Amino acid sequence: MRDAYHEELERLNDQLVEMTRLVGSAISRASTALLDADLSLAESVIVADNVVDRLRDDLDRQAMDLLARQQPVASDLRVIVTALKMSADLERMGDLARHVAKVARLRYPDSAVPADVRATILQMGQVAERIVAKCGQVIAAKDVEDAKTLERDDDAMDELHRTLFGHLIDGSWKHGTEAAVDMTLVGRYYERFADHAVSVAHRVVYLVTGEWDVAEDHEEQEDRASELR
Amino acid sequence: MRDAYHEELERLNDQLVEMTRLVGSAISRASTALLDADLSLAESVIVADNVVDRLRDDLDRQAMDLLARQQPVASDLRVIVTALKMSADLERMGDLARHVAKVARLRYPDSAVPADVRATILQMGQVAERIVAKCGQVIAAKDVEDAKTLERDDDAMDELHRTLFGHLIDGSWKHGTEAAVDMTLVGRYYERFADHAVSVAHRVVYLVTGEWDVAEDHEEQEDRASELR
Repeated sequence: MRDAYHEELERLNDQLVEMTRLVGSAISRASTALLDADLSLAESVIVADNVVDRLRDDLDRQAMDLLARQQPVASDLRVIVTALKMSADLERMGDLARHVAKVARLRYPDSAVPADVRATILQMGQVAERIVAKCGQVIAAKDVEDAKTLERDDDAMDELHRTLFGHLIDGSWKHGTEAAVDMTLVGRYYERFADHAVSVAHRVVYLVTGEWDVAEDHEEQEDRASELR
Repeated sequence: MRDAYHEELERLNDQLVEMTRLVGSAISRASTALLDADLSLAESVIVADNVVDRLRDDLDRQAMDLLARQQPVASDLRVIVTALKMSADLERMGDLARHVAKVARLRYPDSAVPADVRATILQMGQVAERIVAKCGQVIAAKDVEDAKTLERDDDAMDELHRTLFGHLIDGSWKHGTEAAVDMTLVGRYYERFADHAVSVAHRVVYLVTGEWDVAEDHEEQEDRASELR
């Protein structure tokens, strides 16, 4: 049987899952807005990010309140502090979805995405959606094994990112500098979106195992790996 | 007279100030490496980022330890949770300095910075250095008024960012897409570096005043402001 305190802890978790749902919807709609030059869809993503921010604020206040009232130790303390870190990652993912939507809005009625990178951007959007959906499942089920499969999705994102950048700089780019700037930024937004999702999953692993090392910023680990190559 | 507990709290603050010092040195050297195509300086920035990461890890462990052992409430609780958030911002600033250094390394022996944006990038580096130095002072002195002056430095950074992007897309760009991609990313790194510094300063304001609202992500506030224009 659960007491009120543990119900409150569980509620933090539910809110994190709800954040992944909102952020997943945001990146999905932002990708469609970008690819279809859909202004009203772009606007709806930009406006809705407020809801993610408010959810983060609520969650942070509840976490602070639990720390003050319950003075948790050991694993409960870890759950609360990790929730504070995960809410920051998820809030940032919402910002990145909004950034994608803002590129769509900026170039409307044109599409910001030239035809020859359309397939790559479409796939980046799909991987982003998949990764945040899994992220929600990992938080909900606290599944360490599932968390590890996110790495593979993130590898797919990195590969798409390399493909996009390769095309931008291989000398065949015919769409001018403005489109190159747009695609550089959009590529970066999707890549960072995936990195934050992986960080969230790593934090779930930390929660379950108590090991700090895996909770490091993900981009960091990738950078280190590429420096060794 | 200070007891051991309050000395530990003060030590968290000292470590945050030390992080601003390391990150300030990193962005300064990264900027020089980028402008002068100095490979060994770029490498030194890339390698030294480990130190910032370790400092963040140490600080986070001590913060968790204090939460568990001392069960702080009210303002002490705020100090510790805010330190956890500030350490994340400062660690990210270190990453961004490393990213700038990596662009320098990638283009060596060429300079990644075309002559006609050299002055803009130089100024972005100088504003970044100034803003992180002030950030250290704000943390050390907990000076709310000083925190507000960082906004003006950040406005200067945003203006430089707009100048850089304007030049990239006004049709006069003669340096090809690769250089445009590099400058798009470098501009974004400097801008985010400044945003994180402003977030840190806002958190100091939160610590002193207890008001959550000002502690919001800074880029967020800028975005909202630009959406109202």
